[in-house]
Amino acid sequence: MSTSFPDTPLAEMDLVMHRAQEAFEQFQHVSAREKAAFLEAIATEIEALGESLLQTAAKETNISLPQLTGERNRTTGQLRKFAEMLLEGSWVDASIDTAIPGRVPSPKPDVRKMLVPIGPVVVFGASNFPFAYSTAGGDTASALAAGCSVVVKAHPQHPATSTMVATAITKAIQQCQVPVQVFQHVFGNSAEAGKSLVQHPATAGVGFTGSLAGGRALYDYAAQRTTPIPVFSEMGSVNPVVFLPDTMRKNAEKLALQYAASITLGTGQFCTNPGILIALEGEGLDAFTEHLGKALNGTKPGKMLHQGIYQSFQNKRSDALRQNGVELLQESGTAPGEMEARPTIATVSGAHFLENPLLHEEIFGPYSLLVRCRDMNELQQAWLSLKGQLTTSLMGTKQDFHEHAALVQKAATMAGRIIFNGVPTGVEVCPGMVHGGPYPATTDSRFTAVGIHAVKRWVRPVCWQNCPDELLPAELKNDNPYGIWRLLNNEWTKNKQQ
Amino acid sequence: MSTSFPDTPLAEMDLVMHRAQEAFEQFQHVSAREKAAFLEAIATEIEALGESLLQTAAKETNISLPQLTGERNRTTGQLRKFAEMLLEGSWVDASIDTAIPGRVPSPKPDVRKMLVPIGPVVVFGASNFPFAYSTAGGDTASALAAGCSVVVKAHPQHPATSTMVATAITKAIQQCQVPVQVFQHVFGNSAEAGKSLVQHPATAGVGFTGSLAGGRALYDYAAQRTTPIPVFSEMGSVNPVVFLPDTMRKNAEKLALQYAASITLGTGQFCTNPGILIALEGEGLDAFTEHLGKALNGTKPGKMLHQGIYQSFQNKRSDALRQNGVELLQESGTAPGEMEARPTIATVSGAHFLENPLLHEEIFGPYSLLVRCRDMNELQQAWLSLKGQLTTSLMGTKQDFHEHAALVQKAATMAGRIIFNGVPTGVEVCPGMVHGGPYPATTDSRFTAVGIHAVKRWVRPVCWQNCPDELLPAELKNDNPYGIWRLLNNEWTKNKQQ
Repeated sequence: MSTSFPDTPLAEMDLVMHRAQEAFEQFQHVSAREKAAFLEAIATEIEALGESLLQTAAKETNISLPQLTGERNRTTGQLRKFAEMLLEGSWVDASIDTAIPGRVPSPKPDVRKMLVPIGPVVVFGASNFPFAYSTAGGDTASALAAGCSVVVKAHPQHPATSTMVATAITKAIQQCQVPVQVFQHVFGNSAEAGKSLVQHPATAGVGFTGSLAGGRALYDYAAQRTTPIPVFSEMGSVNPVVFLPDTMRKNAEKLALQYAASITLGTGQFCTNPGILIALEGEGLDAFTEHLGKALNGTKPGKMLHQGIYQSFQNKRSDALRQNGVELLQESGTAPGEMEARPTIATVSGAHFLENPLLHEEIFGPYSLLVRCRDMNELQQAWLSLKGQLTTSLMGTKQDFHEHAALVQKAATMAGRIIFNGVPTGVEVCPGMVHGGPYPATTDSRFTAVGIHAVKRWVRPVCWQNCPDELLPAELKNDNPYGIWRLLNNEWTKNKQQ
Repeated sequence: MSTSFPDTPLAEMDLVMHRAQEAFEQFQHVSAREKAAFLEAIATEIEALGESLLQTAAKETNISLPQLTGERNRTTGQLRKFAEMLLEGSWVDASIDTAIPGRVPSPKPDVRKMLVPIGPVVVFGASNFPFAYSTAGGDTASALAAGCSVVVKAHPQHPATSTMVATAITKAIQQCQVPVQVFQHVFGNSAEAGKSLVQHPATAGVGFTGSLAGGRALYDYAAQRTTPIPVFSEMGSVNPVVFLPDTMRKNAEKLALQYAASITLGTGQFCTNPGILIALEGEGLDAFTEHLGKALNGTKPGKMLHQGIYQSFQNKRSDALRQNGVELLQESGTAPGEMEARPTIATVSGAHFLENPLLHEEIFGPYSLLVRCRDMNELQQAWLSLKGQLTTSLMGTKQDFHEHAALVQKAATMAGRIIFNGVPTGVEVCPGMVHGGPYPATTDSRFTAVGIHAVKRWVRPVCWQNCPDELLPAELKNDNPYGIWRLLNNEWTKNKQQ
């Protein structure tokens, strides 16, 4: 791969970031309508790549064509949702407080604020989502929607896919009234490449999806800067699932089938893969275990994204199975081929789980650990001993949730999303979604990486005080030319200011 | 002071933060109505301290009684605005996307999100605002409003004032249905005290107002944590003012009087003090200089907040006046007494200014530097050479703004607030206000420290997926019991969900 896609020389990164800065200076003033047209054009150009893009991605990532097709559609869908958001316009959070010149003891000024873009954003895509979290994925789409220029460092495991998508963006640029360098695509397989981008003075923000080690390294590089910048790294998560006793008694088989599918979906290579299942010992669990084992036995091994991830899965899985008290519950009945991960369920007692933090860590791939607890107290302890998560799921009947209301209430402290009687895999792209969570799920739990509000990672509020109407951004002008929602003297309204 | 207010032993900080964590676990579930009553009660109890609080603060800070009275009223006003925000309720940014069970290829889940508090917040107050940015100031008020517990480290320069305010908060706690340890007050004059609070595992966020060195140190402590946390430090700013040529020709005297007052207001000890004035050489500037000099000559020296700030002012002022090309333009005609700062205007050419970054730095106190530029190009360069700012002011006629539209458009990249034909001192507390800005004005330009949106520093979004209505927070329930604004299936509405 390195021969076809040579690393961008480190010395050139400086030039790239200067261009990104120049492009930003123009792009931030491009109208919402033109930005929306640009995002639409990117979506259209990606679609125009057709089968050839999907084939290239399949070859580079071993992901199935149906999954890639879904992901591609999600990616173009995301771009179009940001375009809609721009056309609707209210996302800028406009607040207007009009003057009261006669107020005593001092006159009240006219004070108006809205969100503006922070500057050039550097995006590091994910290996497991070559479209949706990569070159034209959520980070890029949200940063462009905000009005930031974007530099994407292509993921070294899918450079050809990344290049095709970058070409689609370049075509869209040529069709639209946007600066040529509003998007740039670079290559670099070294830590230095990432560091040089994150620490460049022109860089104003960083988006990353990947491992804890990688995301934390970028966060640390940014924290060392003279001028610190926000880093939004979305990292590991074990997405714990709590099975409450009544549902386990009543629905053991259904739950087992539902979770066997979620654990192995996409060869377990989703950041929302349910890595830890927690339940009470007893009859319900025995039935669940039996059905889960049967279902898992029937699943097929899948080829992993790349050699590094495959090796890591093999090593971590072996390590985990060697831990005190851990037993193999079931693995896929089919022997794995080259670079294939064998779906695996291990099990451990709550007591052993609580004393061994290694068991709390993510094993990226189709591996889950079933924690058997002797009582609700141990169950709650096991669950709350986990670090910050993208999601946590609660499986229960009405009676369960009523009996364990205190436990239910604690879910929000641990995760960005709480799923009731469902699986964590599958992230709906909508305003109500939160894809984020307390560290180490992300480096900043105050934001989401999915849904239109992902744009808030790349903006900051600016206030115009006593500004003549003709100099105000359109969103803040008296006559509200875009007809957006604004907080006008403490009331939400689309009205003009008279 | 140290005998009356001994440092909290470092070993006790751990206990303090554990108590804050326990209090948070209860307080986050306290209703909006009860939280609002609590904030109201704090305001009432602060007012009940009456003259005695003002006298104590005057003694500890050398701030005038009228100024302290205004600041006290602003502080209680802030608390009540957060109470109103809680009662109105829409601040939680609720988004609801309802399910579409029949959607193909996969059903759409019911997805709802709102903002929840991040956890215990540690607040470091400012020496220059013993009320509004200290013990019960904007950071504390916004964090409590969010539902966070708060630990305030008393500012070592006004421990008695801080203790009185802390006592008022304690009285309010006793009257309200809130956990006793929701607010705690500690003392500590060492860097270790701050470090131990910022690096404690239970600490979830930090608010600071003060020097660049102090704010950056806290930011660095937080970045070194295993679990990084947000730090909102509001630090230095020189608040540059650009005088455009037409207004300078037409309004030199009026501008001079306006700015002489702003420069010396509160002995120049406001973070929004205009420290750098930038104008074009010429007739207008000569008249401005003459009037500014006259006005400044007539101002009186003022006693500074404390010995450290006084010494720093003296040293930095002397240093600045020794720089190449810098000349004293005018100082107060009255000789300063003990610990008094002499209001001072120096001047320098644009060329000298551009080559000497030391002249770009804040001198906290009644000192401003007038930069004389030979053309608009140099003026713009001098202005844009400055780092991130809380504010920048543009003084101009309609003709000025029309002729220099490109310059006006650049203001937003530099500062959190742009003031047209006014002075930066005086920060209106309203939703449209932004008190914040690019580094080093603050450590995170994505937030404001003043106005109700300051609450957003201490919250994170959480999503409930397919959650039974009875288990949802009230703000997300179908029947919208609080009648708040919500983004319901992409439309802002106060309607119930049918």
